[in-house]
Amino acid sequence: MSLKRAAECIRRNNSFVITAHTSVEGDALGSELALYKLLKRLGKQAVIINEDALPAEYVFLPGVQKIKIFNNATKAIKFDCFALVDCSDLSRCGKVSGIDFRSKTVLNIDHHISNSRFGDVNWVDPLASSASEMVYRLFKEMRIPLDKDTAELLYVGILTDTGSFHYSNTTSNTHKVAAGLLKYGIDVAGIYREAYSNVPFSQMKRLGKALSGIRRDSSGKIAWLSLKNDFAGLKAKAFDLSEYLLSLMRSIKGIEVAVLFREGLPQKGKVRVNLRSQGLVDVNKVAACFFGGGHRTASGCTIAAKNKEAVSRVLSKIRERLR
Amino acid sequence: MSLKRAAECIRRNNSFVITAHTSVEGDALGSELALYKLLKRLGKQAVIINEDALPAEYVFLPGVQKIKIFNNATKAIKFDCFALVDCSDLSRCGKVSGIDFRSKTVLNIDHHISNSRFGDVNWVDPLASSASEMVYRLFKEMRIPLDKDTAELLYVGILTDTGSFHYSNTTSNTHKVAAGLLKYGIDVAGIYREAYSNVPFSQMKRLGKALSGIRRDSSGKIAWLSLKNDFAGLKAKAFDLSEYLLSLMRSIKGIEVAVLFREGLPQKGKVRVNLRSQGLVDVNKVAACFFGGGHRTASGCTIAAKNKEAVSRVLSKIRERLR
Repeated sequence: MSLKRAAECIRRNNSFVITAHTSVEGDALGSELALYKLLKRLGKQAVIINEDALPAEYVFLPGVQKIKIFNNATKAIKFDCFALVDCSDLSRCGKVSGIDFRSKTVLNIDHHISNSRFGDVNWVDPLASSASEMVYRLFKEMRIPLDKDTAELLYVGILTDTGSFHYSNTTSNTHKVAAGLLKYGIDVAGIYREAYSNVPFSQMKRLGKALSGIRRDSSGKIAWLSLKNDFAGLKAKAFDLSEYLLSLMRSIKGIEVAVLFREGLPQKGKVRVNLRSQGLVDVNKVAACFFGGGHRTASGCTIAAKNKEAVSRVLSKIRERLR
Repeated sequence: MSLKRAAECIRRNNSFVITAHTSVEGDALGSELALYKLLKRLGKQAVIINEDALPAEYVFLPGVQKIKIFNNATKAIKFDCFALVDCSDLSRCGKVSGIDFRSKTVLNIDHHISNSRFGDVNWVDPLASSASEMVYRLFKEMRIPLDKDTAELLYVGILTDTGSFHYSNTTSNTHKVAAGLLKYGIDVAGIYREAYSNVPFSQMKRLGKALSGIRRDSSGKIAWLSLKNDFAGLKAKAFDLSEYLLSLMRSIKGIEVAVLFREGLPQKGKVRVNLRSQGLVDVNKVAACFFGGGHRTASGCTIAAKNKEAVSRVLSKIRERLR
């Protein structure tokens, strides 16, 4: 029903500003670029405006040169409809929410269960793996033919949001959509390589060094890694190793929760804590004890303490939930 | 056409010995166990006989207790049809090929392009991602309803043979089959965890230590790791780290070929060499220079030398192919 209303909203309006959330990733980019293609196919005017610059691992996506970064010039753009994809709330698009959308139609296309239904038209489907899976359905609903580039964009969104089809958000429909996209001759091995085989050599060596320092608690269910300042300079730059480290820690037999502690992040005197769970422990609730947040299986918080104290406090909260 | 002949062969015979290749893995197990279920549904007699014991990471598969290990008793089993899945040649099933199958029908169900068509009935489909994808089609062809356990078996075969749907053997049809399997309510995140999150803690620390020693040649296209005897005790036992190491090496930006050298394997005075390619270099041909073999993207060989000499000789052969 909401899908039909979204399609109707697109037909009714003539010029669009498209955006997605900050810390832009595969699904945000895939769905906004594919939506742009859909609008262009319909002869509409459209512009994509993001707060963030394009992350290096996504420069291979077709059409990325169309994306504009938010600034004073983009503020002055005239449009009828403000279309947000993959945003659970209006604030998720960051500075782009500062665009003047009074008297414009706000179109909200999202798959997060927590979506605040901030739009004039809200198409929210928490059963969809990704915003890209939803935009695929929009193409089908509006009977707009796909092309290879669009298929690649939507595929990247689905690939990255499902962890290559293995997260629990992967459904029968997700595979059905992927089956449809692969008919356009996209190079799945090449796309995977572009999206994932991009660790700088020096970082891979550091990953190894860091990994040899992992710890495990006596229950065998919590793995953690505590990184000191000397790692601080490298993690935020060029390439973020934290996802790799957390993913490797989670692949240890018996581990329910993996935690990464980084002293001196975001500044001296603080520790950045990232948590990942296999599902048994709700790490969103653990992070909430320290005024952080996230999802049941992925969350984060910042604690004003030394690493040692942060480890002790966080592990204690996890243990309470493992009993 | 061959699919129809395979179905006819199954209908015509009453008792079956099923086997798969040695070094049994997800697709071999998934397809042989699912074929067993299909035969049982038809009221046939069937027994699965493998040379190898079940690898620890696959004990979670439904029905594995039905698998018999080849011995003198299994030799005496009476049957009409010898069904091999995922075997490019009769010899691939190891000792099980010693079973007396004279005057029996040999049914060959396989997806390897190199298949020697050794059967009386040969159903070989090199476009199928896996033998499990083929057995799924057999269920459909014979109009035998699937159940959740069978769906899980076939899913594991497809998952592991496609590297979670990202190897180049993944087709639109692979996803279509996965869409069909997910309708049975299988737990994809749980299955992935069973199949992949099984690295012993001590091995993960060793992985880190090993990883910090990776090297890269001046072209930036070859990454290698040379492991000495002190690692030898750990790699073959309990858990084999080599796939993890090679996979991490391949995820380094710009790397076309990753090579692992292990001194003292399989015995003193030898070096076991494992090669992985992104596709540009045919590492099957590199391994063939040293009397080894495999596929274009994955191969291996054994060289009688010290690590240093083996590295020099192998890298030289790779460089010839990178020019």
